[in-house]
Amino acid sequence: MKEPTMKTKKVRYIWIPIIIALIAVPIGFFYVDWSKSGDGAGLYSRDWIPDAMFAYWNPDDFYQSVSTIKGEFNGEQCISCHQAVTPGIVKDWQASRHSKVEQKVYCNDCHGSNHEDLHMPTPKVCSSCHETQHQQFVDEKRYGFPSHALAMERALDSKHFVDKPKAEVTACLQCHSVATKCDSCHTRHKFSAAEARRPEACITCHSGPPHPDDETYFNSAHGQIYLAEGENWDWSKPLRKGNYKVPTCAYCHMNEGKHQVADKPIWKFGIKQVNPLSSGNKIKRKQWVKMCSDCHAADWSAQQLKAMDAERKRAWSKLYQAEAILKGLRADGFLYPSAKQRPAYPGDTKHSLIQRERIGFFEGQASAFYNVSPIERDYFEMWYFENLAAYRGSAHGDISFVNKSHKAMDKSLQKLKQHAKRLRAHGKVEVDETTLRNIWLKGEYTEFNRENN
Amino acid sequence: MKEPTMKTKKVRYIWIPIIIALIAVPIGFFYVDWSKSGDGAGLYSRDWIPDAMFAYWNPDDFYQSVSTIKGEFNGEQCISCHQAVTPGIVKDWQASRHSKVEQKVYCNDCHGSNHEDLHMPTPKVCSSCHETQHQQFVDEKRYGFPSHALAMERALDSKHFVDKPKAEVTACLQCHSVATKCDSCHTRHKFSAAEARRPEACITCHSGPPHPDDETYFNSAHGQIYLAEGENWDWSKPLRKGNYKVPTCAYCHMNEGKHQVADKPIWKFGIKQVNPLSSGNKIKRKQWVKMCSDCHAADWSAQQLKAMDAERKRAWSKLYQAEAILKGLRADGFLYPSAKQRPAYPGDTKHSLIQRERIGFFEGQASAFYNVSPIERDYFEMWYFENLAAYRGSAHGDISFVNKSHKAMDKSLQKLKQHAKRLRAHGKVEVDETTLRNIWLKGEYTEFNRENN
Amino acid sequence: MKEPTMKTKKVRYIWIPIIIALIAVPIGFFYVDWSKSGDGAGLYSRDWIPDAMFAYWNPDDFYQSVSTIKGEFNGEQCISCHQAVTPGIVKDWQASRHSKVEQKVYCNDCHGSNHEDLHMPTPKVCSSCHETQHQQFVDEKRYGFPSHALAMERALDSKHFVDKPKAEVTACLQCHSVATKCDSCHTRHKFSAAEARRPEACITCHSGPPHPDDETYFNSAHGQIYLAEGENWDWSKPLRKGNYKVPTCAYCHMNEGKHQVADKPIWKFGIKQVNPLSSGNKIKRKQWVKMCSDCHAADWSAQQLKAMDAERKRAWSKLYQAEAILKGLRADGFLYPSAKQRPAYPGDTKHSLIQRERIGFFEGQASAFYNVSPIERDYFEMWYFENLAAYRGSAHGDISFVNKSHKAMDKSLQKLKQHAKRLRAHGKVEVDETTLRNIWLKGEYTEFNRENN
Repeated sequence: MKEPTMKTKKVRYIWIPIIIALIAVPIGFFYVDWSKSGDGAGLYSRDWIPDAMFAYWNPDDFYQSVSTIKGEFNGEQCISCHQAVTPGIVKDWQASRHSKVEQKVYCNDCHGSNHEDLHMPTPKVCSSCHETQHQQFVDEKRYGFPSHALAMERALDSKHFVDKPKAEVTACLQCHSVATKCDSCHTRHKFSAAEARRPEACITCHSGPPHPDDETYFNSAHGQIYLAEGENWDWSKPLRKGNYKVPTCAYCHMNEGKHQVADKPIWKFGIKQVNPLSSGNKIKRKQWVKMCSDCHAADWSAQQLKAMDAERKRAWSKLYQAEAILKGLRADGFLYPSAKQRPAYPGDTKHSLIQRERIGFFEGQASAFYNVSPIERDYFEMWYFENLAAYRGSAHGDISFVNKSHKAMDKSLQKLKQHAKRLRAHGKVEVDETTLRNIWLKGEYTEFNRENN
Repeated sequence: MKEPTMKTKKVRYIWIPIIIALIAVPIGFFYVDWSKSGDGAGLYSRDWIPDAMFAYWNPDDFYQSVSTIKGEFNGEQCISCHQAVTPGIVKDWQASRHSKVEQKVYCNDCHGSNHEDLHMPTPKVCSSCHETQHQQFVDEKRYGFPSHALAMERALDSKHFVDKPKAEVTACLQCHSVATKCDSCHTRHKFSAAEARRPEACITCHSGPPHPDDETYFNSAHGQIYLAEGENWDWSKPLRKGNYKVPTCAYCHMNEGKHQVADKPIWKFGIKQVNPLSSGNKIKRKQWVKMCSDCHAADWSAQQLKAMDAERKRAWSKLYQAEAILKGLRADGFLYPSAKQRPAYPGDTKHSLIQRERIGFFEGQASAFYNVSPIERDYFEMWYFENLAAYRGSAHGDISFVNKSHKAMDKSLQKLKQHAKRLRAHGKVEVDETTLRNIWLKGEYTEFNRENN
Repeated sequence: MKEPTMKTKKVRYIWIPIIIALIAVPIGFFYVDWSKSGDGAGLYSRDWIPDAMFAYWNPDDFYQSVSTIKGEFNGEQCISCHQAVTPGIVKDWQASRHSKVEQKVYCNDCHGSNHEDLHMPTPKVCSSCHETQHQQFVDEKRYGFPSHALAMERALDSKHFVDKPKAEVTACLQCHSVATKCDSCHTRHKFSAAEARRPEACITCHSGPPHPDDETYFNSAHGQIYLAEGENWDWSKPLRKGNYKVPTCAYCHMNEGKHQVADKPIWKFGIKQVNPLSSGNKIKRKQWVKMCSDCHAADWSAQQLKAMDAERKRAWSKLYQAEAILKGLRADGFLYPSAKQRPAYPGDTKHSLIQRERIGFFEGQASAFYNVSPIERDYFEMWYFENLAAYRGSAHGDISFVNKSHKAMDKSLQKLKQHAKRLRAHGKVEVDETTLRNIWLKGEYTEFNRENN
């Protein structure tokens, strides 16, 4: 008698989550959609208005045409007037391939002809001629972030941008606009392929923490040879075996001109630990060794990759020690302010019911820039600045940078241990609430700032 | 009866300050004059003898001709002998316009013909041909300091130079000699205008704290494009709209070749807070926007200036917090050593009766490099290194430098708060007098040093 | 009666040390010989196996030919195949003088003809044509270390390499391989003299602590002029008076192309205090002044050397103060872990009976990188990083670097004083044994690491 009843009950219970899901999933989609439809940008577009510069970095959403000049103009007319108004950019265009091909690409071909309704060209506009490159570029999205193609989208969906001082947000997004305009690498109005093959095209963005590519490339033997001789190379040649004495950024990361940089990294740019010998990574390793073999012995090249495995292992052993200390403190209630005591990110209150500390990559480290307890911030800096710097040194053959960064991690780990010990010994007594509040609760990275941004 | 008496009295009293002033003002002038007439340099010329290098940096006062060769020589004779002795500088001259114009400018035209009475050419010597440039250069003085034209004069009148280690004074003045010789920018003996148009001409001096112009320019998109392409530009062209793909230092700061850099700054190089919208600054803003519009949209350019306003406001809000803390400590007697306890600068004892702490620009911050209490020095570093670095990043479009510098200011402010709290809690107990004396009272920057300099 | 007995006794005693010496000296030689005959490298070759990269850096000991291709090949055959396999290096060779002289120098002339028994060319191989340069290079050994010629040998005999993380050892030795291969400066396969005359050839290694030659040269007026104009100079000219507007590294340190850099330094690169006016140094001073006089007045040049004397005196007065503090702590038993408490370097236990602290250059500072008490390490950093940086700034005319480094030394000295005071006040109570053990006894630079290296 009982069994059938049980069965019936089970069947009934199974329907509950199904019904909830059927309701919740569309609500979720609807909510995200609504959330993005504010005046601002990204997932939190209802919470913040980005800087005026966004007109140029995210033109699809924010650019408004100048309206002082009226009328429709053809290319020759544009040139004729702008030769007087902005001669520099006209000269750039005249030096470009756009002006030299039979069917010239004029100003209005990219910006439109109606001077009251001009637009900034996005990658889509460029793709009407440069379809292959655009396709490669967009296709990168399947590798997730970090990648050029998702640089703007994912950044805009970061909850910590809402409270950050606007100057900092602007600083981040200036480079993240690589996703939404092509002239980050091919500067206007020459849009030269030769220019983008040179390292300077990349290091406009790729320098300083957390991605000292500039520093590490130029400190390497490759970089020094480029500095000494590069000015005499023929930069019109494609990035191919035998064409360059040493590789530049693009030679390795966009070999043969393929517009994808996210397809080859083995160690995920150092941001999380990976199995460097997974089947996918074994294929990548072969690709790297093949490319290094354009100049080096294959054996030698494979050894370089092994050296990187060792460096990464060394880095992660330090990071995991640090994480363990922090998780211990959290478990025993020694983090202050704790997740519940901190003012929430807007996204936290709106998008989730439960607040938590953010320790380690998988717990949302990427949102731990600010608004955490001081010891969590110190760990974040160890992870985000020192660890990533070590990775970059390792990847670009600047071993002195590896050493410097590992020494910094050693010091940070040492300090974390001492700090944790003090916290456990003195608890909140050690904490200066007033001072902390000034910085973390009413400081530059809090809701206080949101209102003044 | 009383009224007239009062009136008479008042009249009598009025004469007292007038008489004092009539006596004091000429005494003051006489004193300053006497003060500058010592063997050394500047206002404190009786207190210190500068380094031997001064012969080359301030030649009017210190250069003594070599006397090993005797006789009068004409230009051809100079060349003929120096071709063997110092062929490099002869080759430079041969490559210069001085050797190519019809009426050649020979060695003796600038150095004199009598080999026992040679002189180093000063801007005045150069002005006999380059009058316009010299006039512009000298005219800069009306903008006060910082300016090229007053760089040497004002530096020599700094009281803290007397006690500083001579190597440091020398380091400062090597660059400040820009006021007293033209070859700081147009290096000898080519004296090339093209050379001075390139950023390297400027960053020989303009790098490192407190003026990281080098770092911030080259980290900007402008700087990177210069690095990638600059070697192929035609540097013989004037600094004018349309002649250069991106601006260099001189393009913006000496546009059209005008030899004045002090006439355009809105924020006074970051050294003090200004009203960025004063009538004078509104004119300067228009000048900047006009120049940026050589390549950029006017709207965009105006936004950049607004971003600088915001950055400066943010910086000063931090600096004022720091100042308030220090003034509070001073009022309550917690600064040690206090103004009265410190050994005086020579200028202090000789030129003023009352010693005081130097907190904030208007109280003489510029003299607070040394010989202050440790917490005052920390504030000075925040103000002089971190704040000015943030300004430079902001002005040159290197926003990552702005972020780095503002984070440094945040840390400094946090430390100042904690330090102030400790001082208030423990007072002098915390202070290790012996250690302090070693550094501040008998250390490198004190009267002890003066005797050993 | 007694006297002859005494005499006899004395005679007998004299024989004891003589006999010991006769036994000990050959044993010593035998021991060192045995010690170097392990599988690894250098004096401690039984204790560690260097990284795989050593095959390329110390090829005589570690290179093993690839064995995938069989057969003997002549030069034309090498070229014909490698044009497809590694076109870049073939192009380099084609651009080199090796391919342009009448009797071409082919691949097999340096690497051998048997593809199963290839070798990496060492300086000795190059010397079969470039005898003069090789002789000069090798002759440098009589100046001891630091010198290019002894760079590898002396490094390999460093006991602290055994326990260091391998990545760090590798980082050090990558540059120290300058002793064992010529392409550190003349990069393969162009082996260009012109390339080696440019500063980039040197700064591949000479940058960063402890030898910021890169930073200090490029910050100097010399470096800036090179940066602005160097690309247009004729680098095929020898490094001789009149051929270059400003000196590069090699102009001064390898003047006239002489392959010796260790013959001219007066201050021993800053690593120990010297009498700058010894008879030997007086000769060197004249050599320097003579070279500077290629462009500058002799007086001026002599003053520059005097300024360096003053800088060095200032630096050593600080270092000696620090040393005195540490020696005091040691004498009174306040160093922890003390020499006896630390795990020994392999070399310590094997090669000496008595352990000691290493304070100051003459007590073996060079082995005090690691495995010392924290305060000793701090002193080491002051000595090795800050002091040597100050020296470099002074030597290369980058006075702002001198200031920065001296300020760092001031801070370090201040911290050492405070730390010493704490140690004396609290002794071991202050020391957190557990934490210390983690870092110094079980950390990255200990025997624990040796087993995991």
